[in-house]
Amino acid sequence: MAAAAPPPPPSPAAIPETIVPETAPPRHPLFARIRLGTIFDVPQLHKLIHQMATYERLTDQFSATEASLAFTLFPSPSPPPPFTSFTVFILEVSPDPFPPTPQDPSNFSPILKTFHLDLPIEDSEKDIFRSEIGGDVVVAGFVLFFPNYSTFLAKPGFYIEDLFVREPYRKKGFGRMLFTAVAAQAAKMGYGRVEWVVLDWNVNAIQFYEQMGAKIQPDWRVCRLTGDALEAFAHLNI
Amino acid sequence: MAAAAPPPPPSPAAIPETIVPETAPPRHPLFARIRLGTIFDVPQLHKLIHQMATYERLTDQFSATEASLAFTLFPSPSPPPPFTSFTVFILEVSPDPFPPTPQDPSNFSPILKTFHLDLPIEDSEKDIFRSEIGGDVVVAGFVLFFPNYSTFLAKPGFYIEDLFVREPYRKKGFGRMLFTAVAAQAAKMGYGRVEWVVLDWNVNAIQFYEQMGAKIQPDWRVCRLTGDALEAFAHLNI
Repeated sequence: MAAAAPPPPPSPAAIPETIVPETAPPRHPLFARIRLGTIFDVPQLHKLIHQMATYERLTDQFSATEASLAFTLFPSPSPPPPFTSFTVFILEVSPDPFPPTPQDPSNFSPILKTFHLDLPIEDSEKDIFRSEIGGDVVVAGFVLFFPNYSTFLAKPGFYIEDLFVREPYRKKGFGRMLFTAVAAQAAKMGYGRVEWVVLDWNVNAIQFYEQMGAKIQPDWRVCRLTGDALEAFAHLNI
Repeated sequence: MAAAAPPPPPSPAAIPETIVPETAPPRHPLFARIRLGTIFDVPQLHKLIHQMATYERLTDQFSATEASLAFTLFPSPSPPPPFTSFTVFILEVSPDPFPPTPQDPSNFSPILKTFHLDLPIEDSEKDIFRSEIGGDVVVAGFVLFFPNYSTFLAKPGFYIEDLFVREPYRKKGFGRMLFTAVAAQAAKMGYGRVEWVVLDWNVNAIQFYEQMGAKIQPDWRVCRLTGDALEAFAHLNI
């Protein structure tokens, strides 16, 4: 059947994505890509999470190792399909356009965006955060999310556990790109909502989220049972 | 090998679970059981969720149908194994002891507990909430939870989305039994934490959770993107 079909028309994907008007040449283009994380990203991911813990002054709560991340996020031999469980998007940046990527078996196509910056980004940790795909590609951030569920809607949603952009890449739209990638994926899947938490004193973040259409729930409080208090339940006679 | 082994000693499971001292005969024993929900529980579950929406005065947000619950919670042909995705525990009560249940393929053994009540419970909706397993067994409540993830711990946890006990069964320990079942399961699986939300004005609930060892996070706020604001992202040019 396929061999008998006429040749397809030129694909829109064959048209270069970045057409820059000649009147406004970008001084410092930076190519960004969001793709699904894999077990090969674990070393970079571990460093990103540690930086996040440092930024939040919560290193005392940090106990992740590369091995424990790999074991829990990408269990072998067959990690669950993306979006059905814990899912990582990796944000990469490169001075050169990304080569076309083959269609991912999960049907998720990497998201590409070109940023035109006034000044080049100085990234002193470029070598530490070189992407596992090689070249001049550097990991700039990540978002980790997983399905949640609304009984009222009888629909799944996504919960964003962490969204992090490395310091040199902040306030340039990369965080919005990561956030948008998750919301767009939820919307495409027909999901009911996207949720996350924010610190109540983080006025800038709250304003940013509200501008994106989010509602902050003023009277809900998160409860957490952890550590010894949780472990005590393993031996509890219900 | 097994045939050559000596006969096993009498199993503790063969000893009746409810040994009541003769000096304090219970006037009104009520047998409770927590088991995994299945697609056959959907009609009862739908009614329970609607009652919860009514109780919370949020029926305007309620759009679940039996069909949408079945489709999202117990997708055919092969729903995900319990605890790996959205998981429902059903709380049933009965005037008679529950018969022994065969070992569930998921390795989850139903949790049994006998309540000794001063007064019998008058349940005017007994017929509506008769369990799908038949007999005099009535569905009294449920808890819906699913895995979440802590990047700092590199461990999964559980998030409790809803816990609901029908009105005639409240303030008797059934809610604690449901909550404990989830926490015990998390602890047995080596998970890092159990989380849920509570309304900040619900002082009784907060006190109850704190007594169970939970910490309330005072400065976190839940953000939600839903409805049209979420759907707009499906067509957004990232």
